[in-house]
Amino acid sequence: MSKEKKIKVAISVGDLNGIGIELALIAHEKITQYCTPLYCINKTMLQKASKELNIDIPKNFKTFNIKGDFEIKPGQVTKKSGKYSFDSFYQAIDLARKDEVKAIVTLPINKEAWNKAEIKYKGHTEVLRDFFGENAIMMLGCKKMFVSLFTEHCALKKVPKKIEEKTLTKFLLDFYKSINSDNIAVLGLNPHASDNGVLGDEEVEIFKAIKNANEKLNKNIFKGPLVPDTAFSPMSRKNYKYFVAMYHDQGLAPLKALYFDQSINVSLNLPIIRTSVDHGTAFDIAYKKDIKINTKSYINAVKEAVNLHKKRV
Amino acid sequence: MSKEKKIKVAISVGDLNGIGIELALIAHEKITQYCTPLYCINKTMLQKASKELNIDIPKNFKTFNIKGDFEIKPGQVTKKSGKYSFDSFYQAIDLARKDEVKAIVTLPINKEAWNKAEIKYKGHTEVLRDFFGENAIMMLGCKKMFVSLFTEHCALKKVPKKIEEKTLTKFLLDFYKSINSDNIAVLGLNPHASDNGVLGDEEVEIFKAIKNANEKLNKNIFKGPLVPDTAFSPMSRKNYKYFVAMYHDQGLAPLKALYFDQSINVSLNLPIIRTSVDHGTAFDIAYKKDIKINTKSYINAVKEAVNLHKKRV
Repeated sequence: MSKEKKIKVAISVGDLNGIGIELALIAHEKITQYCTPLYCINKTMLQKASKELNIDIPKNFKTFNIKGDFEIKPGQVTKKSGKYSFDSFYQAIDLARKDEVKAIVTLPINKEAWNKAEIKYKGHTEVLRDFFGENAIMMLGCKKMFVSLFTEHCALKKVPKKIEEKTLTKFLLDFYKSINSDNIAVLGLNPHASDNGVLGDEEVEIFKAIKNANEKLNKNIFKGPLVPDTAFSPMSRKNYKYFVAMYHDQGLAPLKALYFDQSINVSLNLPIIRTSVDHGTAFDIAYKKDIKINTKSYINAVKEAVNLHKKRV
Repeated sequence: MSKEKKIKVAISVGDLNGIGIELALIAHEKITQYCTPLYCINKTMLQKASKELNIDIPKNFKTFNIKGDFEIKPGQVTKKSGKYSFDSFYQAIDLARKDEVKAIVTLPINKEAWNKAEIKYKGHTEVLRDFFGENAIMMLGCKKMFVSLFTEHCALKKVPKKIEEKTLTKFLLDFYKSINSDNIAVLGLNPHASDNGVLGDEEVEIFKAIKNANEKLNKNIFKGPLVPDTAFSPMSRKNYKYFVAMYHDQGLAPLKALYFDQSINVSLNLPIIRTSVDHGTAFDIAYKKDIKINTKSYINAVKEAVNLHKKRV
């Protein structure tokens, strides 16, 4: 490794009844190659998890105290664990806001447990949007390919009306600012990108937005609208690493077909850097000593947090 | 190879200005392992192509005479070549209709050339629908994974309204009859398959159609609606080989991300068997001796034609 100073990264531990804390413990040594992690958990809860998992707490496992003392119930949805995972996340955000860490990496929470704990948010991204009052951009992927979503959790029938020059132009410019790549593919909406208007007309808006953004940046950054079904073919992926998808499944189905276990989730367009694993709490395999859990997504999330920090400074 | 008798398969040669005839010549020996091909081209045109390509005509290269004599113009859109490719295809259909061959495999045509030749159809499938007055089902894929399309060339905004219990039930039953698999995945329409109605409601129709079809077949054949973005993950693909996609890009983007060069196109729900390569005429590389063309899709198309015939008898 290079001798440059490693950045501090806050790790929110996620739902303690899930696989998050096991990931944190077994991947600690690996991630300290890239950053100095600060785990948002108190010593009592850490010891309980370590004992339950029969995994020793690694050396230099620095924690930031999050109040709470409760029984860990592997694989169960509980109010106390829900509240604790929220507090861990909230403190991680606050550490980043105060610049005490340079980025945060989040381990999976359980939405039902948040609900039980009367936490009004549906997930991490919603908390971040509320905290900062900014329109976070959701990007998923791995080193080989990233997909950002212009529309996210939206019924398919509502998507076409949202494809509109002005908001898409802003999205493209915000996205460019966040990732700073000079070559970004923008997908069409319709089959064959409408075949010159024969199959839908939203590509006209997409085309205008691309033109606006490129003119504003005075460079031919955005390419497209690409024909969606061939955009992710091996040949096309040789040309692009970053893709803007018009809707959730357009980007995520090919991504998960190709890189399911190594993908991560990144929140862009925020004052802080946040990355996350792209999987859930995996309650079905939590605290099961005979099942080896996959650390790829978590390690990639840490790497990308460090990478995004480098791009900012 | 087994000693069972090889079936006769008509090969329509596609646009002679494209790569189709080269594919036919170089893959002849390979495909005769699976079938006895009958090429819909006359000797004059075959000799011209062979000479232009500098590839000898293989032994046992049996032809079915299609009238015509014109100059081959590599990579060019011409009226004569358009007409010839249509005639070759039409005769192949007729041979199959008369049971003189057991299946047809089509090499790529050029839509613009058909247009120049005043052929009113946009492509092979449209001709087949018209010829037989049947609603052909379009299925694409390879040995590892096949995707059938409930809606095809349709603007995305028009898709949600087409998701309707009755037509989907019929589609599922027709599809089952054609491929005869006992385990077929049916995709949802919305992100997260609507998360219990939070993101759209078309999954209700899909659910009903699945239920109807399974009841009719008295077996739990169809599974779903599956969450679209994880339906093609490696784990999900271990469970399913056949997928029903609600729209064009939902099925084809993951398919082409994974298996671009080996995929084929199959027309189901017709009195005859027809498979096709899943690529175009590739005018940019036609008749270029220094470029090796990929025969995977063509060979797979032949294999699948034979395979579908076996299922029928």
